[in-house]
Amino acid sequence: MHEFEIIKKYFSKLSTDRNSLNLSDDVFFCRSKNLIISIDTYVEGVHFINFKKPELVIKKIIRASLSDLFCKGVIPKYYFVSGSGSKRSFSKSNLKKISKSLKQEQNKFNISLGGGDTVISKKLSFTIVSLGFSKKIIYRNKVKKDDDIYVIGNLGDSFAGLRIIKKEIITNHHMRRYFENKYYLPELFPDLSSKLFLFANSAIDISDGLITDLEKLINQQSLSYVLRIDKIPISNKLKILLNKKKLKKENFISQGDDYQILFTASKSKSRIINKTAKSLGIKISKIGSICSPSVKSHIIDEKGNKIALKNKGYYHRF
Amino acid sequence: MHEFEIIKKYFSKLSTDRNSLNLSDDVFFCRSKNLIISIDTYVEGVHFINFKKPELVIKKIIRASLSDLFCKGVIPKYYFVSGSGSKRSFSKSNLKKISKSLKQEQNKFNISLGGGDTVISKKLSFTIVSLGFSKKIIYRNKVKKDDDIYVIGNLGDSFAGLRIIKKEIITNHHMRRYFENKYYLPELFPDLSSKLFLFANSAIDISDGLITDLEKLINQQSLSYVLRIDKIPISNKLKILLNKKKLKKENFISQGDDYQILFTASKSKSRIINKTAKSLGIKISKIGSICSPSVKSHIIDEKGNKIALKNKGYYHRF
Repeated sequence: MHEFEIIKKYFSKLSTDRNSLNLSDDVFFCRSKNLIISIDTYVEGVHFINFKKPELVIKKIIRASLSDLFCKGVIPKYYFVSGSGSKRSFSKSNLKKISKSLKQEQNKFNISLGGGDTVISKKLSFTIVSLGFSKKIIYRNKVKKDDDIYVIGNLGDSFAGLRIIKKEIITNHHMRRYFENKYYLPELFPDLSSKLFLFANSAIDISDGLITDLEKLINQQSLSYVLRIDKIPISNKLKILLNKKKLKKENFISQGDDYQILFTASKSKSRIINKTAKSLGIKISKIGSICSPSVKSHIIDEKGNKIALKNKGYYHRF
Repeated sequence: MHEFEIIKKYFSKLSTDRNSLNLSDDVFFCRSKNLIISIDTYVEGVHFINFKKPELVIKKIIRASLSDLFCKGVIPKYYFVSGSGSKRSFSKSNLKKISKSLKQEQNKFNISLGGGDTVISKKLSFTIVSLGFSKKIIYRNKVKKDDDIYVIGNLGDSFAGLRIIKKEIITNHHMRRYFENKYYLPELFPDLSSKLFLFANSAIDISDGLITDLEKLINQQSLSYVLRIDKIPISNKLKILLNKKKLKKENFISQGDDYQILFTASKSKSRIINKTAKSLGIKISKIGSICSPSVKSHIIDEKGNKIALKNKGYYHRF
C-alpha cells in the first residue's frame, strides 16, 4: 500500500483534535499553541547506507528532519534523537563522534537538544523529532492554478554522491569528496525560511525525489504540472558528470535526498522571488508551472519534446 | 556504559536552552511554552516479546509513553507514533488492529494522534512521543530527607504476566488471562495525575523496576532509602502465585513494566494522600522512607531483617 493510502485509511481519523492538522501535511501544527513538530525514522540500509561514518550520518538525518520545518517557513528550536542499535553502533568512540557532530549542527542551526532515548537493537535506526514555534506555516496542497514551480539550490548532487559512495560511479578524489559531502551534508537555508511567506503558496522539501514530492505537494488538488527539464538547476560539478555520461538528468530528478525546498508561487511574485534570491545569495530557479487538470502532468525538454521517466521516485510502500 | 553516564558525558551539554531541563528528568519541559514531551523507543524482543498481538502491544507502548507524563502531573494531549518494521508487521490486518487499538486508547485517555512515520526495516520498533501542556511538573531528584515513599496501585502483576506468556509459570486459564492483561494493559490513573501536586515532592513511573526507578528518583541527591518489602502492594491473584511458590516478591521488585507511579512526600502529607486515595478509589501505599546518606539503602522484611537482592533491576547499558 502507498503511504498516503495507509494514512488516509488507518490514521487520519485518529487525528481528532480540531486545533491541529488532520495528518494532511508533513508536519504537525497545533494552531492554538503555535507549535510545529516533525517526526521521522531513519533506518540503516534505507535512509543511510551504513554507519561507517557516524559523524556524517548523524548530520544528514538531523538536517533531513530540520528541513521539514524550514520548508514550511518555521525555524526549528529543539530536536530529539531516539536511537536503537547494537552496542558497537553506540561504542564510546561513536558516541563521541555523534555528540561532536550534534554540537556542530546545534551551533550552525541554533537548536538545542530536548531529549532522546538509546536502546539496544540488532538493527540501527534513529527517530528524529524537530520542533519549532510559529503562528503560521506554508502548507502542502495550497497550490494555485497557473502558479510557477520553483526550487532552491541545486538538485542531483546528493544522488550522484550516493552512487559514488556505492562505487557505481568512479571519479577522481576531488569530485568524490565534493559529492560525498553533498550526500551527507544537504545545504539548508535558514535565512530563506521565513521569507517564504512573502511569496510561496505551497511548499515541501525534496526528500523522495523532485517528481514524487511535487506530486505530494499537489496530491489532494485537481491540478497538474509541466516541468522543463533543462531548467532544473544543477551544480557545475554535476554538469561535468552529465557531460561524461556518468548519469542522466532523468535519473536524479526521480531520486531523493536533495532536501531542497520546492514551492509554487503566483506569476506576480517572480520579482520579489528574484530579489530575495539575490539579497540572500541563494539560487532560486523557476522550473515549471501548474496547469489545469485537463492537461496531463508532463516533463519537456528545451525544445518542447516530452520526456519519459522510467520511475517517478521513491514512494513508501507496504 | 550506564545510560546516565552516556547522557552526562555525551548529551547533557547539548541541552543548551535555558528554558528547558538539562536532560535531567524523564521528560522535556520547556518552561516558557509550558510544553512537556516524552520520547521513547520500544524494540521487539526488548520492550515487548513479539508482535503476535499487535492490538495489545500497541496499547502497552502507548500507555508506557503516557505514563511518563502522568507521573509528572501532566495530562497528555497529543501523541506521535513512528514505526519501522517488515511489510508483514504492517500488513493490512495488523494496521487495522493498530488503528482500532489507538482509537480505543484515544477515547480512554482523551488524546489525539499528532503525526508519525512508517518505514520498512527488518527489525520491528516503535518510537512514541507524548506531549502535554502544563505550567509545572513534578521533578525527579527533588526528594527530601525523611520523605515517605509511596507507590500507586499494585506491583508485580505485569512481571508475572510476562513469565506466564513466556510459559515460565504455568497457571490456569483464568489466572493467565488476568496476568496477560496486566502485562499488556498497565493501568494508568489520569485523575490522580494533577492531584500529585498536592503532596508529591518528587515522582517517577516504574518502568525498569521499583529499585532501579527509586534509585533514579534520588540519583543526583545525597540520600538513601529503606523499603519495607511486606508493604509493597500486590494483587490478590499475585498473592495466590506467591503462596504457590510460583515466584517470590524479591523477583518482581527488581523487574520493570509496572508503570505505576512512585513518589515521595513529606510525612505531614499522609492525611491528604489517604484522602485523595479514598476519593479517587485508588490504592496508594506507603512502602518506605528516605534517609540521610549515612544509612546505606536497604530493604527489610516485616521483622526488620535485611533482604538481599540478586539484581536491582533493568539498567540500560551499552
